[in-house]
Amino acid sequence: MTTVTVDSLNHFLGEAFPQTRCRVESLDTMSATIRHPIGPAELRPGGTVSGPTLMAAADLALYAAVLGEIGLQPLAVTTNLNIHFLRKPAADRDIIARCELLKCGRTLAIGNVLLYSEGMEAPVAQASGTYAIPPKR
Amino acid sequence: MTTVTVDSLNHFLGEAFPQTRCRVESLDTMSATIRHPIGPAELRPGGTVSGPTLMAAADLALYAAVLGEIGLQPLAVTTNLNIHFLRKPAADRDIIARCELLKCGRTLAIGNVLLYSEGMEAPVAQASGTYAIPPKR
Amino acid sequence: MTTVTVDSLNHFLGEAFPQTRCRVESLDTMSATIRHPIGPAELRPGGTVSGPTLMAAADLALYAAVLGEIGLQPLAVTTNLNIHFLRKPAADRDIIARCELLKCGRTLAIGNVLLYSEGMEAPVAQASGTYAIPPKR
Amino acid sequence: MTTVTVDSLNHFLGEAFPQTRCRVESLDTMSATIRHPIGPAELRPGGTVSGPTLMAAADLALYAAVLGEIGLQPLAVTTNLNIHFLRKPAADRDIIARCELLKCGRTLAIGNVLLYSEGMEAPVAQASGTYAIPPKR
Repeated sequence: MTTVTVDSLNHFLGEAFPQTRCRVESLDTMSATIRHPIGPAELRPGGTVSGPTLMAAADLALYAAVLGEIGLQPLAVTTNLNIHFLRKPAADRDIIARCELLKCGRTLAIGNVLLYSEGMEAPVAQASGTYAIPPKR
Repeated sequence: MTTVTVDSLNHFLGEAFPQTRCRVESLDTMSATIRHPIGPAELRPGGTVSGPTLMAAADLALYAAVLGEIGLQPLAVTTNLNIHFLRKPAADRDIIARCELLKCGRTLAIGNVLLYSEGMEAPVAQASGTYAIPPKR
Repeated sequence: MTTVTVDSLNHFLGEAFPQTRCRVESLDTMSATIRHPIGPAELRPGGTVSGPTLMAAADLALYAAVLGEIGLQPLAVTTNLNIHFLRKPAADRDIIARCELLKCGRTLAIGNVLLYSEGMEAPVAQASGTYAIPPKR
Repeated sequence: MTTVTVDSLNHFLGEAFPQTRCRVESLDTMSATIRHPIGPAELRPGGTVSGPTLMAAADLALYAAVLGEIGLQPLAVTTNLNIHFLRKPAADRDIIARCELLKCGRTLAIGNVLLYSEGMEAPVAQASGTYAIPPKR
């Protein structure tokens, strides 16, 4: 049982990923929701959110859900990430990524992520990935 | 048979991805190599390249290899990308991503990408992905 | 809107995959649930279901959900499948695989699959994959 | 440094996967090649090799390459597998799967697999996957 809160996690992520513009919105048992603000830096010509922006949001949602379970351990690292791009995201809406952990074991955590243009019903992308959890000393 | 050159492709990518700092280094039959410059914006505390930077480099290498085959079509889009993170990249070396297309069909192209910290022998990541190619009018 | 029923789909699958022991259990909008009976042929020493058995069940659940949407088209083919193995399945329970389609477009369908040992709450595996849908004549 | 030979590995796999018809053909540093015989049980109507047959071959090639590095440890398990289906395999040729390990660490091994219809130049599928290696006692 950890005592990670949305505030403590946002503070931690701000130090671990100083460039990120993402914020954790909510944390629950085995799940987390994050928001990736969308501005000119995240858009491609034609008015859509870039693929790497969605990948970054998926990775961060997974990381947030893992840290919510294991505590604020800086050494957890992604070992793989798989993403399916489903629909063109809206250019003028933030990306909301919600991760559900399917397993949070002693050494590996695996989660499923759905990504949305805020307020839209159909997901813009689906991702799944694995985090390696460092052994406790 | 297309007439895409490294220069024409870099010009095209600069317009399609105005934020990217990547450059195509070489193009060959069914393959492409790109360079992602690494600076403070791509690093995490502790001195390693961020996962989203590697994902962006993998996606661009795949896109470059596809455009080298089909010509400069803005409408080709990634449908999926899978990445395995293998080793901690060096903080002071550019990322070099080399894509080999395994198939470039009428509607789908699939490729394999190896990513390196420049000058290192062991890859830092491996990716594979699919691009959907728009039908010719 | 198609008129595919559980019975017509099971009849179709029995002809398309004569070796399969899987049966479709239910079909709904953008989703399908299948059962893979587990017997000696699906087990490994130590008493667990083999990985290829889970992969086959995931693929079939995805196929069933796609056919439920597009009709009984023999030419839809898997283009990729990604699977995470989460927990050791029970040796004496069937595998139940439930697919939710995330998108069923004109040319590609993408779905998410959760696999369970029947009656257990925690999934034994998660898969996602893409089917290519042949163009209508 | 292990002393795994093709013969000792085939003997081990015959006990670990009594149903498999696959055989290891060759083992080298960080790589292995296996053969999956193709007969009526592996075919679908229309004369192509089933997807699950290719997935099983990819998984076994990865397992063989891992065991060649770490020795004949029965407890190594697949944690994920991603496969891209590229071309229709020939119905009358065995499947040859060649795995190159990209990393064989203390706890995780990751490899890339190319699958061929024997004697054909273009691969029929590409896979990548992760094995979890049990800690030494």
